[in-house]
Amino acid sequence: MALLFRSTPERGAIWQRVFQQEGERIFLGEDAVDDPAAVTHIACWMPPRDLSRYPSLQVVIGVGAGVDHMPPLPEGVALSRTLAPGIEGMVRDWVVMAALALHRDLPAYLDQAARGEWRTHTTCLARDRRIGIMGMGRIGREVAGTLGAMGFPVAGWSRSGTPVAGIEVHGASGLDGFLARTDLLICLLPLTDETRGILNARLLACLPQGARLVHAGRGAHLDMAALRAALDGGQLAAAMLDVTDPEPLPADHWAWSDPRIIVTPHIASQTDPEEGARHALAVIRATRNGQPVPGLVDRAKGY
Amino acid sequence: MALLFRSTPERGAIWQRVFQQEGERIFLGEDAVDDPAAVTHIACWMPPRDLSRYPSLQVVIGVGAGVDHMPPLPEGVALSRTLAPGIEGMVRDWVVMAALALHRDLPAYLDQAARGEWRTHTTCLARDRRIGIMGMGRIGREVAGTLGAMGFPVAGWSRSGTPVAGIEVHGASGLDGFLARTDLLICLLPLTDETRGILNARLLACLPQGARLVHAGRGAHLDMAALRAALDGGQLAAAMLDVTDPEPLPADHWAWSDPRIIVTPHIASQTDPEEGARHALAVIRATRNGQPVPGLVDRAKGY
Repeated sequence: MALLFRSTPERGAIWQRVFQQEGERIFLGEDAVDDPAAVTHIACWMPPRDLSRYPSLQVVIGVGAGVDHMPPLPEGVALSRTLAPGIEGMVRDWVVMAALALHRDLPAYLDQAARGEWRTHTTCLARDRRIGIMGMGRIGREVAGTLGAMGFPVAGWSRSGTPVAGIEVHGASGLDGFLARTDLLICLLPLTDETRGILNARLLACLPQGARLVHAGRGAHLDMAALRAALDGGQLAAAMLDVTDPEPLPADHWAWSDPRIIVTPHIASQTDPEEGARHALAVIRATRNGQPVPGLVDRAKGY
Repeated sequence: MALLFRSTPERGAIWQRVFQQEGERIFLGEDAVDDPAAVTHIACWMPPRDLSRYPSLQVVIGVGAGVDHMPPLPEGVALSRTLAPGIEGMVRDWVVMAALALHRDLPAYLDQAARGEWRTHTTCLARDRRIGIMGMGRIGREVAGTLGAMGFPVAGWSRSGTPVAGIEVHGASGLDGFLARTDLLICLLPLTDETRGILNARLLACLPQGARLVHAGRGAHLDMAALRAALDGGQLAAAMLDVTDPEPLPADHWAWSDPRIIVTPHIASQTDPEEGARHALAVIRATRNGQPVPGLVDRAKGY
């Protein structure tokens, strides 16, 4: 059994150390694979296009917080979603940073800083900035807890509308009312057929004028042209995006240089490399021992 | 009785509305004062240089979170520090934003964004980023509470070393040990003779290599040349400053364009204009009725 790990050299070095300590075999990148038939597991954000090179493949391990972007896998190949206790907290940290940055006008101050301009803008208290979270899974509930404890009025929206203690949660049919009371919208939805393109012109128009958008869902949720139009028309004041469409964002894309937008390169849900490697080891051992694979994904549900 | 308010037109408009509603007299800026003898109160960050123009002056009201930058006032003129329930939370919001921004490498990502570069860096979990807070007053304790609840190991340092529930607080003699365990240093100290220039080359050298600095104390705490040398030498990885020396930072200052630094123009402690105006009204009424002035500052203590 051997694992093929597709990632950066920086993360690869950490995985290699963990695997060597535990006496397991690892290839860092496809070019390093000198024995394709030995590869039983692939850990990656996106698998190689041609999986027929790996006839012994048993499990693909998604290293991000979600696996909804994964293509269909060959029959008999299982999909495992990394269970890293730290990953929800890591996304929560990025989202709280982004929400506070938009709350306190960081895009405008960065734009001024580029010109050396020292000028203050009036702000408002946390209690006067109503936050709305789309997607009330584990990460959404953590974000709601942190921002609620800081004094922001927080509401949530999810397809099911399942109640969450201490938070007003709107269901599918309550979307318009949820948006109308949301000054700062946070998208944490999984990508499904129902949520693809959900952040469109119609949705943005339901927010109060001058609202702000934090997007840490998936690039395909957001209509980037509608975002630009909403910023140009004043419907949105600013946005912070960790996911984009397309992704990676091309170097000459307008969003990089728009002073109302801060883009980060899909870093909110980075798995801690040590935790990710430990999850992969647990999957390999479970496969070897014929035990249930940790983090096994039911692809019919889509997440 | 009349109040002279020195601030931006944006904030002035809100104060004027509140004062008109309550039937109190207000001048917006020195140029608007047509009757200097009527001015009994001045609300400001910094009072006018020549106070002899206002022979009836009784109270100067500092509109920021601290009053340590205030010059000596003429005999018989009291100093009131704005008591706005929201101000501690507002500073806390900025500091938590700044700490998370440095934790998640925002300066590096902003620098890449300026070039349209989509590239991720390895990060660490909150539990592996030790935060140290200098200044454990009300704001320091709020910051410690929020970041501690997010999973960061938090310690504090204060002259007295007064214990705070749930936080390891080091006293004056424990500074070096406190710095040695601090990956991300937050300065929230008041400015006194003892703390002036405290963030110098010697202090920065006591931090672990590659540490990060969030500064929301006062500009005069920080030796800006020492900061630059620490960044150039790799002792510090990044800094986020809401206060600078000098202040305002001149448009051609190196810090504006240094990619390892984010500067905001002293906005962490903005008083909510409505809350600030209500405090000033309470001071005016107390003066009129011969009652104790709210927020009266004992200048011998310095804060």
